[in-house]
Amino acid sequence: MNIEQANQQAVDRMMEARPVLVGIGTARDVIPGMQDNLLLHAGAPITWERASGPMRGAITGALILEGKASSEAEAQQLVESGEIKLEPCHHHNAVGPMAGATSASMAVYIIEDKTYGGMAYSNLNEGYGKVLRYGAYSEEVISRLTWMNETMAPVLKAAIEASGGIDIKALLAEALHMGDEGHNRNKAGSILFLKALAPHIARTCGDSNVAGDVLQAIGDNALSVLNPVMAAGKAMADAAHGIEGSTIVSTMARNGTDFGIRVSGLGDQWFTAPVATPQGLYFPNFSADDASGDIGDSTITETVGIGGFAMAAAPAIVTFVSGTPKDAINTTMEMYEINFAEHKYFTMPQLDFRGTPTGIDIRKVIETGITPRVNTGIAHKEAGVGQIGAGLVRPPMACFEQALIAYAEKYGI
Amino acid sequence: MNIEQANQQAVDRMMEARPVLVGIGTARDVIPGMQDNLLLHAGAPITWERASGPMRGAITGALILEGKASSEAEAQQLVESGEIKLEPCHHHNAVGPMAGATSASMAVYIIEDKTYGGMAYSNLNEGYGKVLRYGAYSEEVISRLTWMNETMAPVLKAAIEASGGIDIKALLAEALHMGDEGHNRNKAGSILFLKALAPHIARTCGDSNVAGDVLQAIGDNALSVLNPVMAAGKAMADAAHGIEGSTIVSTMARNGTDFGIRVSGLGDQWFTAPVATPQGLYFPNFSADDASGDIGDSTITETVGIGGFAMAAAPAIVTFVSGTPKDAINTTMEMYEINFAEHKYFTMPQLDFRGTPTGIDIRKVIETGITPRVNTGIAHKEAGVGQIGAGLVRPPMACFEQALIAYAEKYGI
Repeated sequence: MNIEQANQQAVDRMMEARPVLVGIGTARDVIPGMQDNLLLHAGAPITWERASGPMRGAITGALILEGKASSEAEAQQLVESGEIKLEPCHHHNAVGPMAGATSASMAVYIIEDKTYGGMAYSNLNEGYGKVLRYGAYSEEVISRLTWMNETMAPVLKAAIEASGGIDIKALLAEALHMGDEGHNRNKAGSILFLKALAPHIARTCGDSNVAGDVLQAIGDNALSVLNPVMAAGKAMADAAHGIEGSTIVSTMARNGTDFGIRVSGLGDQWFTAPVATPQGLYFPNFSADDASGDIGDSTITETVGIGGFAMAAAPAIVTFVSGTPKDAINTTMEMYEINFAEHKYFTMPQLDFRGTPTGIDIRKVIETGITPRVNTGIAHKEAGVGQIGAGLVRPPMACFEQALIAYAEKYGI
Repeated sequence: MNIEQANQQAVDRMMEARPVLVGIGTARDVIPGMQDNLLLHAGAPITWERASGPMRGAITGALILEGKASSEAEAQQLVESGEIKLEPCHHHNAVGPMAGATSASMAVYIIEDKTYGGMAYSNLNEGYGKVLRYGAYSEEVISRLTWMNETMAPVLKAAIEASGGIDIKALLAEALHMGDEGHNRNKAGSILFLKALAPHIARTCGDSNVAGDVLQAIGDNALSVLNPVMAAGKAMADAAHGIEGSTIVSTMARNGTDFGIRVSGLGDQWFTAPVATPQGLYFPNFSADDASGDIGDSTITETVGIGGFAMAAAPAIVTFVSGTPKDAINTTMEMYEINFAEHKYFTMPQLDFRGTPTGIDIRKVIETGITPRVNTGIAHKEAGVGQIGAGLVRPPMACFEQALIAYAEKYGI
């Protein structure tokens, strides 16, 4: 077995995947294995007992949305009794930002990889402030989710179908030339998304006020494209998964308690260790003391070579996550040390159109002692509050150490 | 008289002007001094005899649109007989890209400077390819202009009014953080424009198919915001004009034959010299042999500190105008040598959020021998063809020499 060849095959598949947003469906209808008594969440498997505040808050909110609970205590009872099961989004071809809570009746984006045929799913982005994904579950959060599900989703579904599909890989390549890194800064990508949808929303939505409201919601939310981007990332990462002998990371995800990774050549096993707390900038009246641990499936972006790895393309992001434009370039330069390839399609004008660092090689992480750099939002540590900042974080080295040991055992080297 | 103080006042006014897009009107109704037998054009005053191919083509097209001519020969006869008068856009608070042909029945954007009260106007952008502003006047060009005037303009007018006005200065500041330089690359700005308009177009346009068509036209044209940006530039430059003793350039404009500048402290006098031919990249089947001389009022962008002066913010533009991202940074660095100030509101993340070089000082141009750097489109030298490329150009030094002599004469120094 040749590790280099296996890794080349994995990153080639990651880069040649072509994820296209083809529609919107209801989770119970389209996500494989989805059930009414199942709740999907970010990261590796987690129990209520070990779940962080924002994860508990998001589970509570999703069960309120489903009409199954009316308080955190009721949600806890349902989960601990086993009446409601918790499973990772990643076990169901899905990804979700922050807590990632995805329940049966939620509308989800449907991504199809036109190269290899894989499918991936993600819920709809709620915008900023008090939102479910950061663990808030007040009445305004639930009524916003209800509007998204009942009003926005059908309008977007009709527009996406009328558009013939939106090529998220092409959108990302363009957004990286417009100051985005594709994870924490999706300002350009979100209005490119608006641009692709707007004529179709106007033409297919029967109610011009609703059309106006949906156009406003998509345009005002600089993260509206994050969820389709994450599902596209999942499709690209899945294309690279399961290559015998490959040491390329095919999943990085956080459930708020543990950071978990999976490796292309090591099947579906998670390698987990306790999450760190992000370093960054806080909203007024909040500080690092209020911060929850690192959380969310959005590290799928770094897994496929964008996000923190493409910071050089997004110098303006430092106003949001802290640091200087030079730090942003240094972050990307450092990531070349631990990645196997430079992306063929995701390039950065600031580095003379060099491809982004792509395909984390667990061998290189261990050899260099450099862990991946991740951009992230920061949630309040208590359930029910929401986002309090944004910053940078790294996974624990222990995940990569465990993975390398497992690799040595499996392949006998 | 203190030159430094005068220049500080001029650039302060340039930077503190706040141009807001408040509406759309018909040229004859809103542009001061506009008449049915008057045609406005880019640059300093020009006659038919001295006009370049694309200028003649655009004049012909505008007269066809007005129903006054049906051929270039008829257009020539009307202009040479004096039946149709030619005057610069700049003499009527207006600006137009490339040939800048603006006739009485054309819809124009209305910009109001909310700080100093000035008004400025610009026609609507036609998109790429065979377009009037590059001297094309075939049937498809005229029918496109007719659709813009009769269908698109009323929809945009209603949406702009419903929006309460679009702050073009804020839009530009944001676009500079998204890889635009505001002249030849307005990709981000144009979709920010779309974002601001889209909900209002959906809500106010009675016909959902027309709404869809207009959203498509604005979204597909990466230069759709160029004309409002130019009118905003005109308002900012006008705010800086007429400061006694100031050596700051308040107009740079080309009519295709001459490059013309005006200076804040030297009244309305033009200082002109023959234009250069841009250096750049050509579309397939065209070369420098086909190129017309430098043309258009769009140098108003460089006049107010964006465009070529902000190249460092737009490294991806080199794929369009030639050069490398390093050249883009060098261009901006060079422009600091001849500008009086760094912009307070237009900043570049790539240069640690340094303000763009703003306010060309004719003294510095002469002292350093460095002329301004301008990004531009390239027109075919013959009437009726259109755009054939894009590139970089500089004004002739003679404009600045004449201006400095006039300054010395006027102020006796």
